[in-house]
Amino acid sequence: MAADKSTGLTLQSIREAHARIRDKIHRTPLVTSEALDELCGRRLYFKCENLQKAGAFKARGATNAVFLLSDSQAAQGVVTHSSGNHAAALARAAKLRGIPAYIVMPRNAPAAKQAAVRRYGGEVLLCEPTLAARESTARQVQEKTRAEFIHPYNDLRVMAGQGTSALEMLEQQPDLDAILCPVGGGGNLAGMAVAAKSVKPAMRVWGVEPRGADDAARSFNSGKIEPLGEPRTIADGLRTSLGELPFAEIKRHVDGIITVSEEDILRATRLIWEVLKLVVEPSGAVPYAALLDGQTVQSRALPERIGILLSGGNLDLDRTPWQAAV
Amino acid sequence: MAADKSTGLTLQSIREAHARIRDKIHRTPLVTSEALDELCGRRLYFKCENLQKAGAFKARGATNAVFLLSDSQAAQGVVTHSSGNHAAALARAAKLRGIPAYIVMPRNAPAAKQAAVRRYGGEVLLCEPTLAARESTARQVQEKTRAEFIHPYNDLRVMAGQGTSALEMLEQQPDLDAILCPVGGGGNLAGMAVAAKSVKPAMRVWGVEPRGADDAARSFNSGKIEPLGEPRTIADGLRTSLGELPFAEIKRHVDGIITVSEEDILRATRLIWEVLKLVVEPSGAVPYAALLDGQTVQSRALPERIGILLSGGNLDLDRTPWQAAV
Repeated sequence: MAADKSTGLTLQSIREAHARIRDKIHRTPLVTSEALDELCGRRLYFKCENLQKAGAFKARGATNAVFLLSDSQAAQGVVTHSSGNHAAALARAAKLRGIPAYIVMPRNAPAAKQAAVRRYGGEVLLCEPTLAARESTARQVQEKTRAEFIHPYNDLRVMAGQGTSALEMLEQQPDLDAILCPVGGGGNLAGMAVAAKSVKPAMRVWGVEPRGADDAARSFNSGKIEPLGEPRTIADGLRTSLGELPFAEIKRHVDGIITVSEEDILRATRLIWEVLKLVVEPSGAVPYAALLDGQTVQSRALPERIGILLSGGNLDLDRTPWQAAV
Repeated sequence: MAADKSTGLTLQSIREAHARIRDKIHRTPLVTSEALDELCGRRLYFKCENLQKAGAFKARGATNAVFLLSDSQAAQGVVTHSSGNHAAALARAAKLRGIPAYIVMPRNAPAAKQAAVRRYGGEVLLCEPTLAARESTARQVQEKTRAEFIHPYNDLRVMAGQGTSALEMLEQQPDLDAILCPVGGGGNLAGMAVAAKSVKPAMRVWGVEPRGADDAARSFNSGKIEPLGEPRTIADGLRTSLGELPFAEIKRHVDGIITVSEEDILRATRLIWEVLKLVVEPSGAVPYAALLDGQTVQSRALPERIGILLSGGNLDLDRTPWQAAV
């Protein structure tokens, strides 16, 4: 079904986001591989958001949110809590605008992720590694600095930015029949679904998530947000609960949520490294993992030309994911 | 100095090669990174031939050679001896033309490399792991089948094909001041130097090779081909002696040969994986390694905007190169 103008997220807001951010991000390539096409009997188009600024699609949403602020709002800076790709993306966007970024991170966040935030000039504020501590620390920072809070996914400005990758995919390959997108908090899937279905109503859009963190699949089936529970997956970027704003769009526009096994996530990650020569983090390989499961391909009747979002490439390279998982 | 029309390799032959092969290869992206630019104080443009068909620039030369054959020549097939990227590239090109490819490989060639040749329909002929055995086996195949021998680098058709990546780089970024290219047999460096200097005479072109396989540097300095000796480098694609036809062009058109340490090759490889999110084999990271050596950057007076050829991405991913080297 087409995107409804009365919903929170509109095609127009995604188009405006694209105009706002396009000279501040990479227009990432859409790559193909005969070998991977043969393996699943489909034509696959991989959107390389691992090659995006700061190494993930998160640069799109964060940049849109930061550049939407009025000058007086922006002057106070921005704040978020995140231990992942949104943290670095927001610090980078704030640096581009020349404003402060306060990033609340759990005390046990990897040193490399803290360093990435500081490299972009962000101020790292460490807290205890609980959601309650992250939220209360962020609130304190907000009260003290009056900085604008930019949630990693439960924010229409961020969701509009994430949707811009679908606009680019359809410009790069108008013949796409479907898009597969990873789902964690849901901001990316919501943005891409609204964009893709508004531009081309016949498109099909699926979210893909690890079986060991299947709250989106359960929520989609029951129609209300189901709690995540204890996630058990190597795909650390998807160990996140579905947000309410994204879920509203997902219910309306997404064809379904596919779950994949840890084994297929690792196999997909390695195939992307080996055949596409792209460093992708396990979370980023999750959509391709759906193509490795013959039963999924058949039962979902996946069409001929499929766009696949490679969402990010940030991971520790001391060991490969398939070594780390042993 | 500009390319001389009287030489063996001409800009025209490279332009014709490009027209011949362009719908049979990828136009690979030219990627940039603010982080890597800052690290060396230059603007770097990475030509992603690791994303090329069959995972290396070798697809360019092999495809040009195969499609230059007359129908009656082609009908007999093609033959080469190679344990590396040229083997798979030639098998792929022959498959595109619908002709046989006979690939002589040493008995100890990695199973993955043999499998790549067979996947493209090439016939693998195993021989003892010596150059003499490889050459005599290839000669026997030639006599028996009348197949055309396509040398991996000492062949003007192959060199013309390799030069096409420089044409693309200058279309993608006309402001380039210099190109750094790895040098093993020299076919790639020769082709790129003729193309780049013919299109833009002010361009500077350097070859880069491991200190542990520095025959090109010694040959360039003495003016005659110096034997390779026993190569000691992780960059397995560059453990190759300089060919005579490439050397003739390199002497005329190349500004110098830079040698790099094993430590810098590994550091360069890891940085490309980590920051650019690209899987590159150690041989492919060799040109970037030159930028990590401050003394080289200064003594060679490397200019502002530098194009870097990431030549290939084929390697065993059971372990990372920095684990394998320990």
